[in-house]
Amino acid sequence: MKLAVDAMGGDNAPKSIVKGSLMALKQFDDIEIVLIGDEAQITPHLEGSDKRISVLHTDEWITSEDSPVKAVRRKKNASMVLTVKEVKEGRADAAISAGNTGALMTAGLLIVGRAKGIERPALSPMLPTKNGDGFLLLDVGANMEAKPNHLLQYALMGDVYMRKVRQIEKPRIGLLNVGAEAGKGSELTKQAYELIENSDVHFVGNVEARDLLDGVADVVVADGFSGNLVLKSVEGTALSLFSILKTELTSTLKNKLAAAVLKPAFKKVKDKMDYSEYGGAGLFGLKSPVVKAHGSSDERAFFSALRQARLMVEEEVAPTIAREIERVSAKEEEE
Amino acid sequence: MKLAVDAMGGDNAPKSIVKGSLMALKQFDDIEIVLIGDEAQITPHLEGSDKRISVLHTDEWITSEDSPVKAVRRKKNASMVLTVKEVKEGRADAAISAGNTGALMTAGLLIVGRAKGIERPALSPMLPTKNGDGFLLLDVGANMEAKPNHLLQYALMGDVYMRKVRQIEKPRIGLLNVGAEAGKGSELTKQAYELIENSDVHFVGNVEARDLLDGVADVVVADGFSGNLVLKSVEGTALSLFSILKTELTSTLKNKLAAAVLKPAFKKVKDKMDYSEYGGAGLFGLKSPVVKAHGSSDERAFFSALRQARLMVEEEVAPTIAREIERVSAKEEEE
Repeated sequence: MKLAVDAMGGDNAPKSIVKGSLMALKQFDDIEIVLIGDEAQITPHLEGSDKRISVLHTDEWITSEDSPVKAVRRKKNASMVLTVKEVKEGRADAAISAGNTGALMTAGLLIVGRAKGIERPALSPMLPTKNGDGFLLLDVGANMEAKPNHLLQYALMGDVYMRKVRQIEKPRIGLLNVGAEAGKGSELTKQAYELIENSDVHFVGNVEARDLLDGVADVVVADGFSGNLVLKSVEGTALSLFSILKTELTSTLKNKLAAAVLKPAFKKVKDKMDYSEYGGAGLFGLKSPVVKAHGSSDERAFFSALRQARLMVEEEVAPTIAREIERVSAKEEEE
Repeated sequence: MKLAVDAMGGDNAPKSIVKGSLMALKQFDDIEIVLIGDEAQITPHLEGSDKRISVLHTDEWITSEDSPVKAVRRKKNASMVLTVKEVKEGRADAAISAGNTGALMTAGLLIVGRAKGIERPALSPMLPTKNGDGFLLLDVGANMEAKPNHLLQYALMGDVYMRKVRQIEKPRIGLLNVGAEAGKGSELTKQAYELIENSDVHFVGNVEARDLLDGVADVVVADGFSGNLVLKSVEGTALSLFSILKTELTSTLKNKLAAAVLKPAFKKVKDKMDYSEYGGAGLFGLKSPVVKAHGSSDERAFFSALRQARLMVEEEVAPTIAREIERVSAKEEEE
């Protein structure tokens, strides 16, 4: 299988992107990688020659400041646009980028296109849980407004992903809400609750934001606005807490010495909260896999995103999602 | 001034409620308190007699499991209902309860009533920030759906509160959103952005959930569904992190010893994240102050809620909010 990699996206591009790609080549015998970007910047990080990695040169790219839709439309030769085109035109099986999230969603939607029957694609990262299993949260911002049926489709897509890629037989699907009882929340969540309850997934009902890190569900479904708020609240709170801890634990020499002893323990806690280990955020509902790696990806995090993209191809996540959506629509029409 | 206190609400009632009330009496010469609840359970915690504290007996109360609207309608003599009635009927200046949040919102709305011109009351807690100043988040769930004009009213109410009670001359008002640029988010936030920008408050634009604990705004405005998600995500993440830290830091004897040295530092961090210090959550937009203390309030947290209620009365927050809303409506009609 071949993975198309945007070598110019993210804070540490192209170095971490190239290094992460080399890690993936070493680990997996069955992949080839095409790096898309500025050859002059990429080549210095390619150690020697490997037939399984190639460079597709371009001297245009999209920055994090670019307006997503405009950038994708106007920068026809941007590394990200060409990366996604490799997939669209059948030369690669999946596209991976750590660049501008909005631009990647736009490029995925406009160039790769939605799978048949999918109303809205969903941006779907894994978040950490206390026990280390993590959970899938979708949507976190591919679409700001959602209808009940979109949330049902998110549930179906999340279910397929967790079964195929994370090997969970019956993923527990939860609906993000402000209370655990049925009938809680907004009109959207009330209607989505009924739809998901009547579907074939293993629905565990409403889940509250407070309990997410306790691992109350394997998949948590939300409209993109709400999902984004929760994602960023969790990230922001964890970062703030670590920062406050750092200040307090290094405030005196005595504290510094004690904190030094605990360094490995702190690292374990940080690692548990580091969801780049789980891979990037898949853009579910497209014809082929498109994966958004963290903007701040180091080589290890980018490797994780590649590993995830490879699994999505191998386990046929995109075609399975399309089949599942088709099956459910057919069933609805029958009824 | 007289404060009406629901002695039977919250996990530690009536003990912590009574003790917290005694703390407040000691601290503030200008208050009287009426405790509403089961006299037999309350009296043992009243140390000696103080003319400034009295008990209004009832043997009915609302539990956390009760359905809010039903409970308020049917349990006519519930301690919470009688507490709010003391205010409604002019025998007390503010009502404070650590009981069932939904029931208190219902009782506030049905019994005390909305101030003139207010479309929706808002539940408004203070959340912690890294520098210890905290910020006001509203609404966190008094109303699940909001219209742009509701968010404008939340901004105006938050502005009054922070000026009056927290003595901030020009509170920075932010709109909770998924991106910092104008034009981001849902239809609701786009329209609310314009309304708030054209108002007299010091609007700092959209604020992201990731940056809240950095103190990017003094008041953060959100629809009740979103505000509730963020509140609970922050709480849940902090609790989960402390729990993971505890597990890791006590995993070996060496770690335990080092962690013991750091105990005061950890306590400082926990205190910084403990927003019960800031008081409870005010229910803004009612004719008189109603304050929801944390369900898990100990005597110190309940004291904070009483201190907050006292300030709301002294600084005339409720009438000022009503005047402000009236002024803005009149201005709109002129235009």
